[in-house]
Amino acid sequence: MTRTLILLRHGQSEWNELNLFTGWVDVRLTEQGKNEARRGGELLAESGILPDVLHTSLLSRAIQTADIALDAADRLWIPVTRSWRLNERHYGALQGKDKAQTLEEFGPEQFQLWRRSFDVPPPPLDDASEYSQVNDPRYAGIDGEVPRTESLKLVIDRLLPYWSSAIVPDLEAGKTVLVTAHGNSLRGLVKHLEGISDDDIAELNIPTGIPLVYELDENNVPTGPGRYLDPEAAAAGAAAVANQGKK
Amino acid sequence: MTRTLILLRHGQSEWNELNLFTGWVDVRLTEQGKNEARRGGELLAESGILPDVLHTSLLSRAIQTADIALDAADRLWIPVTRSWRLNERHYGALQGKDKAQTLEEFGPEQFQLWRRSFDVPPPPLDDASEYSQVNDPRYAGIDGEVPRTESLKLVIDRLLPYWSSAIVPDLEAGKTVLVTAHGNSLRGLVKHLEGISDDDIAELNIPTGIPLVYELDENNVPTGPGRYLDPEAAAAGAAAVANQGKK
Repeated sequence: MTRTLILLRHGQSEWNELNLFTGWVDVRLTEQGKNEARRGGELLAESGILPDVLHTSLLSRAIQTADIALDAADRLWIPVTRSWRLNERHYGALQGKDKAQTLEEFGPEQFQLWRRSFDVPPPPLDDASEYSQVNDPRYAGIDGEVPRTESLKLVIDRLLPYWSSAIVPDLEAGKTVLVTAHGNSLRGLVKHLEGISDDDIAELNIPTGIPLVYELDENNVPTGPGRYLDPEAAAAGAAAVANQGKK
Repeated sequence: MTRTLILLRHGQSEWNELNLFTGWVDVRLTEQGKNEARRGGELLAESGILPDVLHTSLLSRAIQTADIALDAADRLWIPVTRSWRLNERHYGALQGKDKAQTLEEFGPEQFQLWRRSFDVPPPPLDDASEYSQVNDPRYAGIDGEVPRTESLKLVIDRLLPYWSSAIVPDLEAGKTVLVTAHGNSLRGLVKHLEGISDDDIAELNIPTGIPLVYELDENNVPTGPGRYLDPEAAAAGAAAVANQGKK
């Protein structure tokens, strides 16, 4: 019997709408983002792929997405575990900056390097910044230090221990697992699942609000490509993510 | 150092509004109920009594209440555990029935016996009823049988193991604990905490949406009476609960 994993990227947030780099800044969903989450839950209900257990990041926009989607799928009651290891990539000194302005200021090459290179993190965020999380109580209990910046590689380094220790055991117990998280933490997870190379991952964009379903074998390897529950909307959404920063 | 426990009864549900016995039927909050939950969260934020961990029932109205209140208090990210042991009392064959009509049909004595006697459960609900939960997947994993009816005594019998095994360890770890639940599961917990007699518990009514805060000593005994964060609204709310069923 295969195992079922559902990945769901949160819908539009207040800072997506403003075209700002967000990272670990804890902004909320917009009304459009809430509608995307509801549609995501309806897609789960319509497909009959109903999660038995939920994993979320510690960021409100992922938690809101899960709450709204599960409400729409009548599964508010499933057990939930939250972890900072599912958080969005920490965007370092770019957090709070306008994407289009950053593109203009630093040029397309540097911009694309920060957004999509595998292992080059942006400059670290100053602890005194209003966008720093070093004193946020939600991270008081994490192992090690609160990040000041992260590359995708660093995201994967902190994500995989959670995959192995928390998500895999649920899959092995036969549970259908829903993970609601972020563009880059989900890209990291998909890279691991599909064995995508460090170079090719730059081209992978995950659209918001559309459940991406994997069937996994007994080694937790996908038996085929991930399947979006609304493929047309997913293709349009991925293209929109790829074009971010362009005016 | 004392330990802090916050109890929060869910706000108005669709069936509260219709004046029906609800029990384990999984109805949602009304807009008024959502506003009550938001106000509850604002009271937590204003008082600075911020939960570190959440326990809820498996019923959507308690989960919605927690999600909305925690959003208002900027604590969506705290760990959460859900249990059927925090569910509302199962109202047996009364589930789905109109309270005023039941009062008229059976008379005030029988009505009050079902609502407020300590150990007389209503007649059991037929498994074939649309209001039965015997085939609800959320209860597939519970110990023992899904109830067909419960007295307050039976609620306390299934509640206290959860109090001891799940809530007390959080309190002992120094965490401020929020429990979002229901009129009767919270009455059962308050009876235990305050040592209220089987007779006197009939007079205790817990208002909706107003956090009730206990400070507990090292034996998890309250150091004083529970304190509502909005005492005036709480008194009015408790009176309204006591008058339910009256037209």
